[in-house]
Amino acid sequence: MCGACNGDTNGAPAAPASNGTTTTNGTHPAQGRPQTSPYQSVQDYLSNVANFKIIESTLREGEQFANAFFDTETKVKIAKALDSFGVDMIELTSPVASEQSFKDCQTICNLGLKAKILTHVRCNMDDAKAAVATGVDGVDLVIGTSSFLREFSHGKSMAYIQKSALEVIEYVKSQGVEVRFSSEDSFRSDLVDLLSLYKAVDAAGVQRVGIADTVGGATPRMVYDLVRTLRGVVHCDIETHFHNDTGCAVANAHAALEAGATHVDTSVLGIGERNGITPLGALMARMVVTSPEYVKSKYNLKELKALETLVADAVQINIPFNNPVTGFCAFTHKAGIHAKAILNNPSTYEIINPEDFGLSRYVSISSRITGWNAVKSRVDQLGLDMTDDQVKEVTAKIKQLADIRPLAIDDTDSILRSFHTELQKA
Amino acid sequence: MCGACNGDTNGAPAAPASNGTTTTNGTHPAQGRPQTSPYQSVQDYLSNVANFKIIESTLREGEQFANAFFDTETKVKIAKALDSFGVDMIELTSPVASEQSFKDCQTICNLGLKAKILTHVRCNMDDAKAAVATGVDGVDLVIGTSSFLREFSHGKSMAYIQKSALEVIEYVKSQGVEVRFSSEDSFRSDLVDLLSLYKAVDAAGVQRVGIADTVGGATPRMVYDLVRTLRGVVHCDIETHFHNDTGCAVANAHAALEAGATHVDTSVLGIGERNGITPLGALMARMVVTSPEYVKSKYNLKELKALETLVADAVQINIPFNNPVTGFCAFTHKAGIHAKAILNNPSTYEIINPEDFGLSRYVSISSRITGWNAVKSRVDQLGLDMTDDQVKEVTAKIKQLADIRPLAIDDTDSILRSFHTELQKA
Repeated sequence: MCGACNGDTNGAPAAPASNGTTTTNGTHPAQGRPQTSPYQSVQDYLSNVANFKIIESTLREGEQFANAFFDTETKVKIAKALDSFGVDMIELTSPVASEQSFKDCQTICNLGLKAKILTHVRCNMDDAKAAVATGVDGVDLVIGTSSFLREFSHGKSMAYIQKSALEVIEYVKSQGVEVRFSSEDSFRSDLVDLLSLYKAVDAAGVQRVGIADTVGGATPRMVYDLVRTLRGVVHCDIETHFHNDTGCAVANAHAALEAGATHVDTSVLGIGERNGITPLGALMARMVVTSPEYVKSKYNLKELKALETLVADAVQINIPFNNPVTGFCAFTHKAGIHAKAILNNPSTYEIINPEDFGLSRYVSISSRITGWNAVKSRVDQLGLDMTDDQVKEVTAKIKQLADIRPLAIDDTDSILRSFHTELQKA
Repeated sequence: MCGACNGDTNGAPAAPASNGTTTTNGTHPAQGRPQTSPYQSVQDYLSNVANFKIIESTLREGEQFANAFFDTETKVKIAKALDSFGVDMIELTSPVASEQSFKDCQTICNLGLKAKILTHVRCNMDDAKAAVATGVDGVDLVIGTSSFLREFSHGKSMAYIQKSALEVIEYVKSQGVEVRFSSEDSFRSDLVDLLSLYKAVDAAGVQRVGIADTVGGATPRMVYDLVRTLRGVVHCDIETHFHNDTGCAVANAHAALEAGATHVDTSVLGIGERNGITPLGALMARMVVTSPEYVKSKYNLKELKALETLVADAVQINIPFNNPVTGFCAFTHKAGIHAKAILNNPSTYEIINPEDFGLSRYVSISSRITGWNAVKSRVDQLGLDMTDDQVKEVTAKIKQLADIRPLAIDDTDSILRSFHTELQKA
């Protein structure tokens, strides 16, 4: 549990801060923050957590977000920013959606980005031909396979789905373009049907098959089981796509990679249909803890905040207060017992180093739940000279006032300065 | 994957909407939405997913949120709203934190709520005595057990921790008050140390032991493994507490329940230290899918939105755009292929019934990715008379305009009405 008390007035003395740091946002001591995950002592044979790829779908799934309207200029800006961040592939809205959608695919293909450019179409020949005609590197085919979607959406049988899939795949391959085949609503599809279909398209030579939790109802154990089973059935790469309706989209992506999936779909801030999919930033937070070396060497984490701001502005939303890494208080420490330990060694209460993302931490001292060690660090920052007993006395004053009304840091600083002035007079 | 295309112009005809509904927010067809989870065909022996309890910590963990300042009146309002929602226990900030914190514990204990009232203190005798003196039903003891916290926070040995824990537990029990013992940062603690400690406090008669992912770095598989192991070691209840730094707090809670944990800590909107803990609303979204009957019979889900609004206002934050259930677009459907299926049967693209939370769905038709079935439903709502071919023609017009600029529903309705007027003239 989080420390929740008056901090540190009764505890035994802490071990001295062996690295001597008391800064709240200065350099981060490497000591105590291992380069490899503190958790994983056993390597999983199937796991790709240290070797995964990102298919970034802000310009496809993200366009299905209620607020999204991306003109060509905005699409180009976002594609360039994603490429600079280091995503492996960028997925675009189907060229069949509208005339401009077709042109935008062409425009982005011509930018000369490092990332592969994909577009996402229904599994039929007309759509596939339009996709290939845009000049993309890969075509992502999708069709619903759950009984729900087969009955209430397209009305096709599994036999029909497989037959037409194989024709479309053969066509796309014949054009020298990569192809992925994905089911929709995979977790409510019949397992045997699904595996038969994937086995057939794998044999037909697709680069990837895709698993999609289209309605956002899957749990990590369900994901692990399905992906692990599929890993034994197909030889190609496995892409995964998770909606966030039940808050599990990040954990499901992690479970999929543990089970042998190779690719994760993301969008910036998770924007997409309904409340969206696995957010790129939250996935980075998760994976930098699991596989710090891989993630830090591959992705330009310091660009995350600017990337999120670009997209948030484009779709007129605020970055959620609780967003991993870039939420306004993701590295703010408030309870006295936390603040004390953080000042000794940030790894005590931080699993992510804010500096990896070009950010800094903040130790709040303006509340009733602060503690004297945190206040002492502020006293030192302000260059005021006090004994420990004096700091404890002024901490009591801060708590007293914070019981009555919210305090800003200016208020607290004033209390510290006036207390210090009185000390000097005395 | 989500449908991403021009909807439904090429597909085979859909099965007819057998329930005849085309309303976007009317009554919800029970058909196709099973009362029990569509996923779980096998019962787990250990699982408590259909029999869990909530320890609501908005008034403890939530007070550690950067923006939180709760005066007594606000605390009382929140406590009453949580009680009305149906949470099992309400946890309050330590009475040792400040004078007002002590008084607020007493005030809330005297409200006569159905929920048990707990307070959360460090594991020492002074704190425990203050806790008991407030009149709470239970005392939640906590101490850091990771090497990080033992070195950089309180500096105590495991032997010292166990000895003092047993003394404090004995005292609280002697006062006729329930007691929980929790480690802090459990996932970075030595497993053998942890299990030895829990075994000792279980033998001493605690009501619950607690597992805490204090830094938010755990994954569902780690959680499952630790809780399942612990389940074999102690006889008492198991409480779990998950921070959300890496976006896994909801999934971790679910994994803990699957492994035999009995209680989950939540706060409204997840507010807490840094970016917070398992949000109450997101957990409800998760659990109503896993265990619909239990959750709908136990919690007043229709009060969720008001509860979240109350807390959001109190701490001056916006409800995140992507919040499960109550985010502004959690039940908005935009891509044509989605909208078409949703109109036939909402379960196709909704794992949660918005009506269970007193909310309604919305089918957006004002974008380039809409489809003619969605437009047809709007045409019907407006009472306009068009053939399917005419609807397809006007859909093309909508897409053309939506390629140029963002459309509001008024814009789209105007297109539909003027097209209809022209049809009547012709």
